[in-house]
Amino acid sequence: MAQWTECMNFGIAVARQAREVILDAFKTQKAVMLKSSPADLVTETDQRVEKMIISAIRQKYPTHKFIGEESVAAGERLVLTDSPTWIIDPIDGTVNFVHRFPFVAISIAFAVNQQTEFGIVYSCVEDKLYSAQRGKGAFLNGVPLYASGQEDITKCLVVTEIGAERDDLALTTMTTNILNLLKIPIRGIRAVGTAAVDMCLVATGGADAYYHIGMHCWDIAASALVVREAGGVVIDTNGGEFDMMSRKVIAASSLAVAKRMAQVIQAFPCARDDENPTKAGNDVYNTANGH
Amino acid sequence: MAQWTECMNFGIAVARQAREVILDAFKTQKAVMLKSSPADLVTETDQRVEKMIISAIRQKYPTHKFIGEESVAAGERLVLTDSPTWIIDPIDGTVNFVHRFPFVAISIAFAVNQQTEFGIVYSCVEDKLYSAQRGKGAFLNGVPLYASGQEDITKCLVVTEIGAERDDLALTTMTTNILNLLKIPIRGIRAVGTAAVDMCLVATGGADAYYHIGMHCWDIAASALVVREAGGVVIDTNGGEFDMMSRKVIAASSLAVAKRMAQVIQAFPCARDDENPTKAGNDVYNTANGH
Repeated sequence: MAQWTECMNFGIAVARQAREVILDAFKTQKAVMLKSSPADLVTETDQRVEKMIISAIRQKYPTHKFIGEESVAAGERLVLTDSPTWIIDPIDGTVNFVHRFPFVAISIAFAVNQQTEFGIVYSCVEDKLYSAQRGKGAFLNGVPLYASGQEDITKCLVVTEIGAERDDLALTTMTTNILNLLKIPIRGIRAVGTAAVDMCLVATGGADAYYHIGMHCWDIAASALVVREAGGVVIDTNGGEFDMMSRKVIAASSLAVAKRMAQVIQAFPCARDDENPTKAGNDVYNTANGH
Repeated sequence: MAQWTECMNFGIAVARQAREVILDAFKTQKAVMLKSSPADLVTETDQRVEKMIISAIRQKYPTHKFIGEESVAAGERLVLTDSPTWIIDPIDGTVNFVHRFPFVAISIAFAVNQQTEFGIVYSCVEDKLYSAQRGKGAFLNGVPLYASGQEDITKCLVVTEIGAERDDLALTTMTTNILNLLKIPIRGIRAVGTAAVDMCLVATGGADAYYHIGMHCWDIAASALVVREAGGVVIDTNGGEFDMMSRKVIAASSLAVAKRMAQVIQAFPCARDDENPTKAGNDVYNTANGH
């Protein structure tokens, strides 16, 4: 596995360059395009940063494959093969980015034989670089991370996101999940607006669990490894094995907490990332001006 | 109003000292006591920092009065008179503090004739010092703040907190409010776990609105002035005038957004801060070990 260290270091260097572009654009008013819903936004910066990241990596590693949020939205097929593959979200937290809410992240994961070898999550405004390599631990700006190890759900601080879905079933499911967790009771609910950073907060021990339905593989591929390498667990919301294409995830401080949450959390139906691959592209239906 | 500038500068100096104590304690495991519910926590640090702040201010301004979260919890009467009064939350975000979730704030407001003259919110881990003096603008680390001015609710990023209430009516009301806002639709919901910081995020323009039911005057007295001095508006959740003792607030980028939110948001009954003043003290019913 150590053979991928050079790739990881290159990924980190590229993320640092991408952060500069994102921070410059963060301060300015943005033109916003809508994707699947009025809360699913994309900006010119998302597209530009993804191109910049992929182009830099492709130049160095011409045989590697890519899964990128904006490339998929533009109609590219989403297939995770056994080949070395970079899974990229140029700006996780685009709604935050548009609003200048100070949590936006670059997420870069790297998988070989469909197994994540390393993950990089760069929370740009906070200047917090999370990273993990399989079997080598998780780090925040170089300092080792440890999940809380909490096993008692009633002492858990839980992070989640409503996401971009705005149909009645999705919204009712999401708010019912929150209600049922609070009734257990849990200590509280938090949401900073980026799945990648939310999950990394579980890796720091600052939060004890995270769950989400409806996000995409590029949002959580990197942070799932960060959580696991920090000693946390990552499973499906149905209690089964985590599948990065299933668009459902629970990340937690312990298997006990993850399983307890799986008993409460209901999922609404959403198409897997690796089926119906042109849907996201077809959903880019509208263009609107900035907020 | 400028006559209170010296008091404000002294308050900022005291907040900077208090931050050092909080940051030291942030890193360590905490013994936790419960107040009104399993999510209403207090630590020895909350109590120690409040004593430290009040003692420093009292030495310099012996005639001034105080309303402090922990003093009220310990049974002191909560009365806001016309006298110069410091309204203090030593750690807003105690659940975050216990969990080391990186958003905890010192909130210090100063009122004369029941009008807030200045407000200080120090987000300790982020090292962000928000301040505002009546008629003189709002600032973050010395840089002027401006609310977004957004008037269209469908382009709003909204911050809120569930708070510490865990009875069915409160929880159902809170999650129904979130559902009804999302159905409008709004862009999204965020929650960083401290009312004071959440409201200051509206002052930065990063969020467009905040609402809360069940918080206390010490949580939002300072940040309400920060929002107003940044050009935002602060009203009651019933659409009427803001009353810091009513335990209900909407802070927004514009009156249009605040009024639109007031149409959707329902409040559950909770006793005013200035009635039944010994309740909080009687509610300190249990002692438990850290999470």
